[in-house]
This record gives sequence, structure tokens and C-alpha cells, in this order.
Amino acid sequence: MTDTSHPPTTSHSPFVHIGHSPARIDGLKKITATVPFVPAMSHPGMLHVALARSELPHARIVSVKTERARAVPRVVLVLTGADLERIPNLDPWIGPAFKDHPLLAIDKVHFVGEPLAAVVAESVEAAREAAALIEVEYEALAAVIDAREAMRPGAPLVHEHIRPSGVFPDLAHLPTRSGTNVCYHYKLRRGDVEAGFRAADLVFEDVFTTPAAQHASLEPHAWLAEVEPDGKLSIWSTTQTPSFVRVELADAFHLPLTQVRVRVPYLGGGYGGKMYDKHEPLVALLARLTGRPIKLVLSRGEEFYTTTRHAATLRLKSGVMRDGRIVARHVEIFWDTGAYADIGPRIAGKTGFAAAGPYRIEHVWIDSYCVYTNKAPAGAFRGFGTPQIVWAYERQADLIAQRLGLDPLAFRLAQTLDEGDEFATGTVLHAVGLRACLEQAAQAIGLASAESRVLSPESDRPPGRRPPAVGIASAESRVLSPESEVRTQDSGLGTQHSKRRGIGIACGLKAVIYPSTSSAIVALNADGSAMVYSSTVEMGQGSQTTLAQIAAEVLGVPLEKVAIHLPDTDVTPYDTITAGSRSTYHMGNAVRLAAEEARRQVLEAAARRLEVSPSDLELREERAFVRGAPERGIGLPELFAVAFGGRGSTVLGQGRFAPTTAPVDPETGMSAKSTEYWFPGATAVEVEVDEETGQVRVLRIAAAADVGTAIHPAHCAQQIVGATTMALSLALFEAMVFDNGQVANPSLADYLLASFEDASPAITPIVVQVPHPDGPFGAKGVGETAIFSLAPAIANAVANAVGINVVDLPITPERVLRAIKEG
Amino acid sequence: MTDTSHPPTTSHSPFVHIGHSPARIDGLKKITATVPFVPAMSHPGMLHVALARSELPHARIVSVKTERARAVPRVVLVLTGADLERIPNLDPWIGPAFKDHPLLAIDKVHFVGEPLAAVVAESVEAAREAAALIEVEYEALAAVIDAREAMRPGAPLVHEHIRPSGVFPDLAHLPTRSGTNVCYHYKLRRGDVEAGFRAADLVFEDVFTTPAAQHASLEPHAWLAEVEPDGKLSIWSTTQTPSFVRVELADAFHLPLTQVRVRVPYLGGGYGGKMYDKHEPLVALLARLTGRPIKLVLSRGEEFYTTTRHAATLRLKSGVMRDGRIVARHVEIFWDTGAYADIGPRIAGKTGFAAAGPYRIEHVWIDSYCVYTNKAPAGAFRGFGTPQIVWAYERQADLIAQRLGLDPLAFRLAQTLDEGDEFATGTVLHAVGLRACLEQAAQAIGLASAESRVLSPESDRPPGRRPPAVGIASAESRVLSPESEVRTQDSGLGTQHSKRRGIGIACGLKAVIYPSTSSAIVALNADGSAMVYSSTVEMGQGSQTTLAQIAAEVLGVPLEKVAIHLPDTDVTPYDTITAGSRSTYHMGNAVRLAAEEARRQVLEAAARRLEVSPSDLELREERAFVRGAPERGIGLPELFAVAFGGRGSTVLGQGRFAPTTAPVDPETGMSAKSTEYWFPGATAVEVEVDEETGQVRVLRIAAAADVGTAIHPAHCAQQIVGATTMALSLALFEAMVFDNGQVANPSLADYLLASFEDASPAITPIVVQVPHPDGPFGAKGVGETAIFSLAPAIANAVANAVGINVVDLPITPERVLRAIKEG
Repeated sequence: MTDTSHPPTTSHSPFVHIGHSPARIDGLKKITATVPFVPAMSHPGMLHVALARSELPHARIVSVKTERARAVPRVVLVLTGADLERIPNLDPWIGPAFKDHPLLAIDKVHFVGEPLAAVVAESVEAAREAAALIEVEYEALAAVIDAREAMRPGAPLVHEHIRPSGVFPDLAHLPTRSGTNVCYHYKLRRGDVEAGFRAADLVFEDVFTTPAAQHASLEPHAWLAEVEPDGKLSIWSTTQTPSFVRVELADAFHLPLTQVRVRVPYLGGGYGGKMYDKHEPLVALLARLTGRPIKLVLSRGEEFYTTTRHAATLRLKSGVMRDGRIVARHVEIFWDTGAYADIGPRIAGKTGFAAAGPYRIEHVWIDSYCVYTNKAPAGAFRGFGTPQIVWAYERQADLIAQRLGLDPLAFRLAQTLDEGDEFATGTVLHAVGLRACLEQAAQAIGLASAESRVLSPESDRPPGRRPPAVGIASAESRVLSPESEVRTQDSGLGTQHSKRRGIGIACGLKAVIYPSTSSAIVALNADGSAMVYSSTVEMGQGSQTTLAQIAAEVLGVPLEKVAIHLPDTDVTPYDTITAGSRSTYHMGNAVRLAAEEARRQVLEAAARRLEVSPSDLELREERAFVRGAPERGIGLPELFAVAFGGRGSTVLGQGRFAPTTAPVDPETGMSAKSTEYWFPGATAVEVEVDEETGQVRVLRIAAAADVGTAIHPAHCAQQIVGATTMALSLALFEAMVFDNGQVANPSLADYLLASFEDASPAITPIVVQVPHPDGPFGAKGVGETAIFSLAPAIANAVANAVGINVVDLPITPERVLRAIKEG
Repeated sequence: MTDTSHPPTTSHSPFVHIGHSPARIDGLKKITATVPFVPAMSHPGMLHVALARSELPHARIVSVKTERARAVPRVVLVLTGADLERIPNLDPWIGPAFKDHPLLAIDKVHFVGEPLAAVVAESVEAAREAAALIEVEYEALAAVIDAREAMRPGAPLVHEHIRPSGVFPDLAHLPTRSGTNVCYHYKLRRGDVEAGFRAADLVFEDVFTTPAAQHASLEPHAWLAEVEPDGKLSIWSTTQTPSFVRVELADAFHLPLTQVRVRVPYLGGGYGGKMYDKHEPLVALLARLTGRPIKLVLSRGEEFYTTTRHAATLRLKSGVMRDGRIVARHVEIFWDTGAYADIGPRIAGKTGFAAAGPYRIEHVWIDSYCVYTNKAPAGAFRGFGTPQIVWAYERQADLIAQRLGLDPLAFRLAQTLDEGDEFATGTVLHAVGLRACLEQAAQAIGLASAESRVLSPESDRPPGRRPPAVGIASAESRVLSPESEVRTQDSGLGTQHSKRRGIGIACGLKAVIYPSTSSAIVALNADGSAMVYSSTVEMGQGSQTTLAQIAAEVLGVPLEKVAIHLPDTDVTPYDTITAGSRSTYHMGNAVRLAAEEARRQVLEAAARRLEVSPSDLELREERAFVRGAPERGIGLPELFAVAFGGRGSTVLGQGRFAPTTAPVDPETGMSAKSTEYWFPGATAVEVEVDEETGQVRVLRIAAAADVGTAIHPAHCAQQIVGATTMALSLALFEAMVFDNGQVANPSLADYLLASFEDASPAITPIVVQVPHPDGPFGAKGVGETAIFSLAPAIANAVANAVGINVVDLPITPERVLRAIKEG
């Protein structure tokens, strides 16, 4: 049912490789199962680990009795948190923002499921049997489960004291904190928000929530660590951040960085769940203590206690004029980061500065709080907090439009940020195709052109019938009435049909991560084959193919001659992270620069031989030749022999891409250039709501993402479809349920993901191309864009269909039915 | 007994690392046996190989019956030369100069011991058992065993037709040859040699020979090949030439270079014996055919059939004036390269152009022939042919001095090439400390200063008594009388003692390999640790330590923070070769350039922060600071965080060093700059000859080598001692004995190496330092220098002691006794 044929055809690309959609270069290897994945790795003499975990959300550890565990046959080692402090030369505290996270709980447990002891054994079974025999005596402490409760004076403290980690420049100057559960508070102040509210015709205030959720990668977290004979620490990790892991391991064991090697094979999905350290230092420590390779693969249940998506509560207060213009907005966001901060502070900051939304608003006041609670830690998740803020501001956009009697699409288009506009941070926007995304998504779902901006519930259309692809305006188009008390009022449509259809739209945009740096090396051989050295992790997103296309385009060689070296901190140069839709732009630029540097050396050498200027030369099909006179040239094998030492020599180019961004003022949150660029996206959906059951069926989705130049259009379309599918699951089904801190649904039997049936509405991916002047061939990024705006689009469509306004995710039948009944 | 304390002390070095002698950075790893060596490697599922070998020196293969071999249990595969031609996409011919060498003999065998079938089995034992059951039917052909016989018209042809290999630029234009056993003929023509002879007072003609010999590395050749799941070919090889092996494997299997990976762990000695392809393509082919890892480790006996040192016959005709000046020299050299050319043509060429010797000679005519015979192939060997030519020209130097009644040292010093002189090729010499080597070696052995240049037999000195270290002039000093019929005449000393002592001296110089290219990458981390990526093979010569010293010096970091990545063609950049004493100069320069490039980036970033010019900054102890104001600076961790993306980032520098040399005119052998620089060395010895047995005991050796700046003085001294020890063994003991092409002594029981007792005379290594302006910190190289001139120095000392002149190596008791008796 998924239509991936929609993206622009590639026949007009002026390039040989860029803008075309070749088969993935790693595709055959993957479908023939000949690529390595950590969970399948095995080393001779390897030992296995099982973790004993806390049963309480917050408690002092009185004792951990390990005698029975140690007595289990084939058990090699049992290690507790108390042991950690007795190990010389070990810093047992990790974390990308704060060093708040012990390898195993020390003194206190902070959440149900927290590892407090590790058992190493000759088999997984023996390790698990022994871990189950560890007896813990606790002294229970009062726990905080809710982020807003945790901010109240006198709330129990999850941590008494935390110190910043200092690995990342933007997080290096976080204050050391004591006596509060708020580990980070981001502020943005623009204009005079109180004056703005006074000047507004109307002021609306709404509260939205999103729950904790799971990344649910097909492949769980897995590690295999070993100590080389000379003491060098070597680990294979399912990580999106090999460089970070290297630094943390060096820190943990006081090793020089050259004595730590992190390798990442292919990943079976990441989605932000495999970032920074998870159990790398623990597994490495066990390898150092036993002198043998150590492997740990988490079970699906353990994944629920390892990392989650931040639950968030978002309060938006907006001052608007009767014509729809938003003139002031006050946002408060409470991020529930769980028991350890992980990257929560950066999420609070990055989403804080984008929380005013993609509209021109003069007066903005934002507070974004990252708050500890006694739950499993939350971290990065596809979209990095943006889906949560888009859920809030795009739901409120429709609520405002309803209340003012305005067409939601027109309401948006009238004040959408566009080329040259200033964002709330003061950053001037360039190459931002938000309007195009809105218009194309609207058009694809069957909303009228900009001239007839109306949402038309089409409940009389037979099920399964698809509307024409462009501009329809239903005869019964109407404007939704504004509602001031959304939660409890019916839209007035009544219940004349048991199933009602509605259309909704939403949009959003996300800033790319900053600061960040990508480095690459490109080695060109005399036979035209080339190796790209990049630390970008291939986790299904197609980065290998995209980077190979860029290198092949610059070097003028066939795509199949470009190989990509897998991430290996001993080999592939530094890259900040594989996340945040940054790899095509940042690593793409690094690879482009590296390939250009190799090309420059080749052309200069050829120019000397041919007695022309290098600028007169082209490099293509393993030959350097005079542009327009291809017979005047020299083949690479001959050129390498005479200029570079022989047919076995290589020409190396290095590229480093580190866009400069102006620093953000920590007091105002303002920056003239706080991000390199933005990913805009918009989603339009048609839903059918069963008024008897509350069930929402998504009939059609049109998802538009501005990707800049599409290096590989089919991959862009697939990324849009993939993110949309994940967003659908999150919008309708996914939520971790807590019972006094205990996860009540820690399995994929109880934690609902969209099934194949749920996940296959007609998705039309729309690849909008507004090239970025600094992107590689104009590319931006696409991995997250389609995950922002589907949930509010669905809720907006539900409102359009049955007049109820959901403010809490997911949009379950229970919630919809309750709202209908309460209406 | 070996005195390594002699080299200049290092307290005067102006550098932090250069000129000091730290412990080897790989030393602890080696003595604790925690470094990898190929023979010890094992991979799961690995199979083993045994080779069936030819029993005849030259024969047509009528049939190879493999049925009985195939029937041996656990045998997996039996492959013959005939099978090779049926394998698609395989080029079964290898060789660095000519593609003359099949992976297994095809149609013909060319020497006794040539592999003609390979057996692959689950165990070494099964493979060997099966290989012994292979039955070969031959049709014997006439063989040529001697190189000069092989040049006679009508001699049997070893190969009917050969084609050049084309891998190396200097060998790429070798002519395709048919109908001759001469695969390469180097010519040098300078002046008018016939006119020179006519103008000379005397003309002497002598013939010298050296035998085939073994490298006798502690570690034999070994390979482990496997095919990765995606078809990539991966091999661990005991090779000094990983880049070359990669090209040949790619050629053999028609793979892109990126689909071949060659890794080299530590080597247990190389000495030129592990160059180019040996059995890499065969082992790789077997891995491809079986789909399993394949390992082959040669036995010591097989080493004798794998590669040897060229036997050579050298005819020198010299025209001299009565005062000793050599005015004309005609040299003919016949290199017995065995059944396959290997690198023989380059040896013939490089030694051909240096064969006139280190003296000012106006008229020179040189012919150097590389000749096929039906014996095991000869290849590179420490000194690359130079020991053979030095044996000839330094023996003739003493013969001429004897004949003219001149003091041999004075004879040499009077016409030794020096700064600004022109070599026979036309090349102007710079930084050539030949005179210093001669003078310091002479002084150390107790020869008088230049003022009293006499050789003094000190037979009356009690055994074991060492002379004072400087200038003695014996009261009985005398000048040896010139002898025109050297072989048969006694020096006139009579036989009044049964043991007589004598002193001898000799010198020589070698050109460094050209053209050649070294590339390196240096990655600097925020903690000051650095990784050097270099394809230089560590085979005991200490290259890791030397390269680390260079990187540490440039980067201002402690030596222990520098790690060296082992050669891996997927990772470490191109290097032509680890051989020819070139690594310190070429790779040292590449590492220096790479480190300087990293340093430049760091200082530029620091200069921006500190608002000074980069040229005002120093980098030391992980800090960049203003020279003279160390408090104005910035630490690397902070600088990396603000300038390079974070503490995990790396700063990469790349260095490529490829000195330009003027091409040699193939007709005249002349070139204005045919080599980048020269290694000069001189050796002086005292010997004791037992006139009853002919046994020669070397009592003392003073070996001087001009190394340029000594990066690591102790290593330089150790290289001198090591090469001297090897040279001693070659001078007195080593020779492969052939019986109609069959090696008569293919074991270390029968092939004599110097024993510990033989090899431990008092060796005084003399590290002469004449810095080269283009060397890294002035360094040249040292690995081969002390191997040139010991043998002629010993023979000259024997002449001095007992008046006989040995012209054939080794200097065995039988030869000495026969000469004494014939005298």
C-alpha cells in the first residue's frame, strides 16, 4: 500500500550519481546475512553476563548477598556496585551531560530495573541462574515518579549532588547542582511576552502530554569487549556514538585514547536508543577483570530499563489576534529524564529554543526543565524531543484556529516562517521549505489549493476510495468552531454516523544538532577503486550508499568501486554522532571535501604531465583529461605510476566539516546562528473515527519533508515512510505504563507497537527539495522530519471528524471514546 | 663482548626525543610474547597446506597423479599447475619485474624444489602425508646451473618468453624478452674506458665470486588467508611489502584494490627475504576455492627453495697510475637470479650503477647482467647486491695497493669520494661521510692516524689483549709488497708462527632505493596521545620506536603516548617497501610531515584563541603556548573542545614523501640525480689465521656507518652490530651448495651459520653522523651499511696476516689452507 514512487523522478539530475537511486551498496550483504552484527559475534573463550536489577524505585542498598550466585557452576565472577569503589584506577560514573550514572548502583538504587550486580559465567544460562540468586536487602526511600511532582519543594531528591561530564563543548559548562531534581533549565526570552499578552485579542492556555516510549529497534543493545595482550581495550558496540564511547572508556579506566578501540558493525536500528554509553564501561570492566572476552546482549525486557523516550508535559499559553496572528507565546516544558540525565539536558535545550514553533511570533518566553524522577532513564529518540513540542504547538494551532473560526491550513500558511524570517532565537532562516511542505502535503491529501483553504470531512466517501491527488474542495466544506474548553466540549457534529472521517494537517521543524564535527578520509587507488573512512554508523538509514554516491560523484568513478570502512575509532576519523539527521549534511560534506582533496591532488599531478591548468581537467572513468578534449588525458594507473609511486599507491584526501554556530546566550537562549539549518516537514492525514468504539483508523497519509537536494531520492522517500510508520505507532499505540515506578508493560506483548496492518495506510512520501547552499550538492537531512507532525495531524483530523480534542498521547480508543462521551 | 656503549652519548641532543635512546616501544610486548606473529595465528575452520615439489632442475611435466593424495583422510583439495589454467578469472603468473612465476609449476619445472601441487587438508600432517603421495612423471630437459654458462649461445633456455610485470615505475618499461637467459642488462658508460686503460701505468684484472646464501630469519615465511563473507580477500602475511602484495592479489583475481586487504603483524626478521609475493596468491587462491581460512608456514627446508641471495661473479679490470689513482675501470657482473627473476633486474641495475666503487674514477664501463638459471630464485637480501660488489671492489683495492706497494688505507683516503664529488653516474654527492667512516674505523681498530697510514700485523700481541682505542703505530709497521699473481703467491711473511694476526680495512657505499614513496597519517587526540599510521613493517629494526620519536618530537608529547598502527592496506597509507634502509629517511619524513600538518592545525586554532601568530606558539606537554611566555597558552583538551568538536575528536595530518630523482638513461646508465642519498660505511678488523688449519678467527671489528643524524643512537649501534654479525657469518661460513641444481645443504645443520661463539668478537659500532639536509632531523638510514665491507676487510686482514688473497666467498679454512699451501 505504501507508495514510494511519488518522489520526483531523477532523470533531470545534472549529476552522474547524485539525485539517482541506485541499489544500496550494503543491500546484497544484508539480505544474504553476510554482514556482522554484534549480537551474532563470538570470540574464543568468551564469557557472558547477566545483571541483577533493583526491585524498588528508590532505596538505600543495605546489603547484596552474592554467595549463592557465586556457588552456581560455571560462574566466573560476581560484581556489585560496592565492589566498584574498591577497584583501583576506575571512575565508575558515566554520562554525556552529568557523571551521574554508576556502572552498577552504588549505595542507592534509583529506579526499578536498575542493575546492581553483574554475574559473569561461561554460559548465558549460568549467568542468569546466578543473577536470580542474588539477594538484596533494601531500605526503601520515598520516590518521585512524576516530573512536576519532582519539582515541588520538599520532593525526595533522586540525586543529592551531580557534576557535569564535560565531554561535549555545549554541555561542558553545565553547573554542578545540589538539592534539586531539575538538572537543567533552558530559558529563552524574546521581546516582552507580558506586553504581548496584553496586546492580544485573546489568550489561550493549553496543556499537552506525551508518554515515555520505547525505541524498539529490531536489534537489542549488545556489546563484546576484550583486552588485547598489550592492555589495549577493544569493544564492539551497538552504538551510534563510537567516538563518545571511546572517550568515556578512556576516562573510566584512565587510559590514553589510543589504548581504547571502539568498533561498530552494522546496526539493526538505532533511533537514538544506542547513543552515548549504555553498558560499554561495565562490559569493558568485566573483560579487564577476567582477562577474557565478555559479551552482553540485552533481552527485550531489559531494553525497557535501559533507555526510553522522554515523557513530557507542555504548557502553551498563546496571545493571538482575531485574524489568527500569534503575537506572544509562553511555553513551559517538563522533561521527565528518569533517574539519570543521559542527554536529557541537551534535549531540554534544543527543543526549548525551538518550542515557539514554526511561526512568526514577536514575544516569546520559554522555560524548559529537565527533571530527574525515579524511573528508567530517558534519552535521545528519533526527533530528539521535537515530536513532543510539535504535538503541543500543532495541537494548539488547531485549537486556536477552531476557537477563532479559521481554516487551520490558512491559519498556518499566513504566519509560517519562510526564507529570511527570524526564528524565535534570532536566527535568520534560509533554505527552509516549510510552506512548500504544508502546501504539498495538503494538496496530496486532497485539501484544496491555497485559495480554498478548508478542511472537509468526507464521511460520505465509500471506504477505501481514494480522493483525486490534487485540489478537491468538498461541497460541504466547513470551518470548525472555536472551543475554549476543548477537553469537555463536543464539536457539535452530533453522532449521526457511527464512523466519521476527518482531515488534519500539522507541520514542524527541527534544528540540526550543533556544535558538531564530521571528519572523513577518502583513499583513491590507481584502479579507480576508493575507500571512504567515515565513523558514520550504518543503521539502516542508507548512509553507506549516500556517502559512496558523494565520493563517486566527486571522483568520477563508478559507485560499485567505492567501499565504505565501518566505524572503528582506530581507523575512521572523528565524527560527533550518527543521529539528528546530520550525517548526509555533515558527513556528506566531510566526504565531499575529502574526495575533492584527493581529486585536487590527482588533477594537479595530471596537469603537470599534460601541461595544462588543473582547472581545465576533468576526472572521470579513471582518467584525467582536458575538458572538451577527452583524447588529451592520462589514465589513473599510468598517473599513479609516474606521480604517486606506483600502481599500489593511494591518494588520500582528508575532509573536516565543522560549521560554526554562534554560541547561545545561556540567559536569553538567543543566538544569531544557533543552528546550521532546519528540517521542515508537514503531514496531512485522513482518519476515520468509530464513534461507538473510539477507534481511530488512519486512512491516508501525505508526508512532506524538505530534504534539500535528494542525494538518493528513493532513500529519502523510504525515510519518510519509515518515520511516518514509527510516528503512527507512537501516535496511536505506544506508551510505557508505570505503576509506582515499575514498568507495567515491559514486553512487546504488552507494550503495543503498530502491527503491519495498522502501519500500512496509504502513505504518500513527498520529497520537497529546497537545496541548502552549504549542503553537499545542496542536501540537508531527512531521517527525523516525518516523525514530528503525524500525531498532531491525526489528532487534528479526529477533531475535524468528531469534534473532540485529544491533548494526551497516544490517541487510544479509550481516550477518544471518553472525550466523545464527555462531550 | 659486544660493546654498544661506544656511540656518541646523547646528552648533547638539542631535541627532547631525537638523539636519545629510549627503550623500544614494542620491547615489552615482544619479551612478554604478547605481539602477533603469523605462524602463531589460528582462525576457526582453518585448513593447512603442503606443497609437492619438483625433483628435477628442468623438466617438462608429463603428468601429475593426485589420486592417492586425494584419498588421504581429511584432505580437502589437491591443486596442480594444470588446474590453474582452468580457473576462471585467475592470472596465475606473478613477479615484481617479470610475470614469469606461476603459482604452481605449469607445463615445466624450472628448479629442484619448485612447488608443482598443493594439498589442502584439515591438518598439517594429513596435508604433508598426501603431498608425499603425489606422483609426477617428468620429461627431463637440459638444465643450466651456472649464470655464465647460461649466457653462452645455445644454452638451454629457462624461459622461452617473459613479459614485464609493470607494478613498479622503474621496472615498468623492461623489454619483453625471448630467446635468452639474460632477463636484464644494465649498462653504464662514463668517459672513454679504453683510453683510460691506455693512459694507465698498470692494468689489473681480477675475478671475484660470492655464493648463493640464505636469509635465515628466525621466523619462516607464513601466510593466513581468508575470504570475507562479501568476497573481500584478506591475508596476513610475513611480508615486507604489503602494498605490493595487495596489487598482485588484485591483479591475480581481477579484484578492485579495495577488495584486497593485506595485514602484517610483527616480523621475526626479514633481511629482504620477505619481499614481493612468495606464496600469497596461492594461499589466497586456496582460500577462495575452499571458502575457508588457509594457513601455510614454510619449513626451514622449504625456505631454501623459496628465496636466496644472488650468487654473483664479478670481473673488475682497473687501470691505475703508480701513485695509486684509479683512472679507468671496467666491471662485468653476472647475477645468478635462479629460475625466476623476482627483483633480480633491479639488483643488477642498482648495483650496476654503483659498481665502480666509492672512488673518483674518470672512465667507467659497467655491464651488469641478470641471468636465469635452473635453481631456486634469488631476490633481495640485506644490502641488495652491494655486499657482492663491495667484496669485489674492496678486495681489488687491496690487491692494487699490494701490487703498487701502497698502504691500503692511504690508497683509499687519497681517492675516496667526498662532498661535492661526482659519482660514476654523474650524480653529485652530498652529506657522504665515507672518509669519516674510514678514518674512525681505522682509528678504532688501532690503525694509526692519517699521518701514519700503515697496517701493522700484531702477531706478537698476546691473544685477547686489546690494543688501545686510538692511534697506535707498531714499531714493526710495514708496507705490504704488491703481488701481481695474488692467488698463488705468498706475501713473503713466511710461516714462523702457526697463528698470525693481520689487520684489514674496507669501505663501501650504497644508494638508497629510488623511486620510492612513503605516506603516513598522524592522528593527535585531545589527551596528547597520538596514533601513527604507517605501512612500515616492524621486523626487529626498531622502526616503531624511531617513527614514534619523530612524531613525539614534532607534537611535543611523551613518547609513551605515541602508538603505531601495524601495517594494514585497509588502514595504513601507501609505502613502497620496508627495505633498503629507507624507512627512517622516507617514512620518517612522511611521519614528520604528517605530524607537522597536525601540529599546524593545532597551532592555528590556538593562535586564533590566543590572538597571536601561529609562529609565536610552541606545542609541548599537551599545551600550545606563547614561546617565552608559557603562562599564555591553552591545553589540548580545552582547545579540542572549542576548536575541533570535542574531547573525542582527532586532528589528522597527512604526509607524503616522494623524493624526485632524475631518471637514469637506459643506454648510458647515467643520471644527474639517480638516488636521494648514499649510505657510506667502513669496517676495520683484526684477524688471527691458523696457518696449520686455515681457520680464520676474527678478533676485533670496528664498524663505522654514517647514519646522518642518529634518531636513536643505541638502535643505530645495534643495527651496526647486527649487520656486522650477519656479515661475519656470510664472510666465513655461509654458502648454498648445489649438486646439479639440487641444494646439497638445505638445513641449518648442513648450511652453516655463525654460532654464538663465532659471532661474538669484540665489535665496536661507530655511529658517524653526517646529517642529510633533507632527512628527518638529518637522519639517513643504517640497516644495511655494516653488511657491505666486513668480508673484504677480513680477507684483506688475512692477506695482511699470511699474504694470501682470497677472491671467493666464504673465507673457509679449506680455501685459506689451499691458498697457503699453493703459495
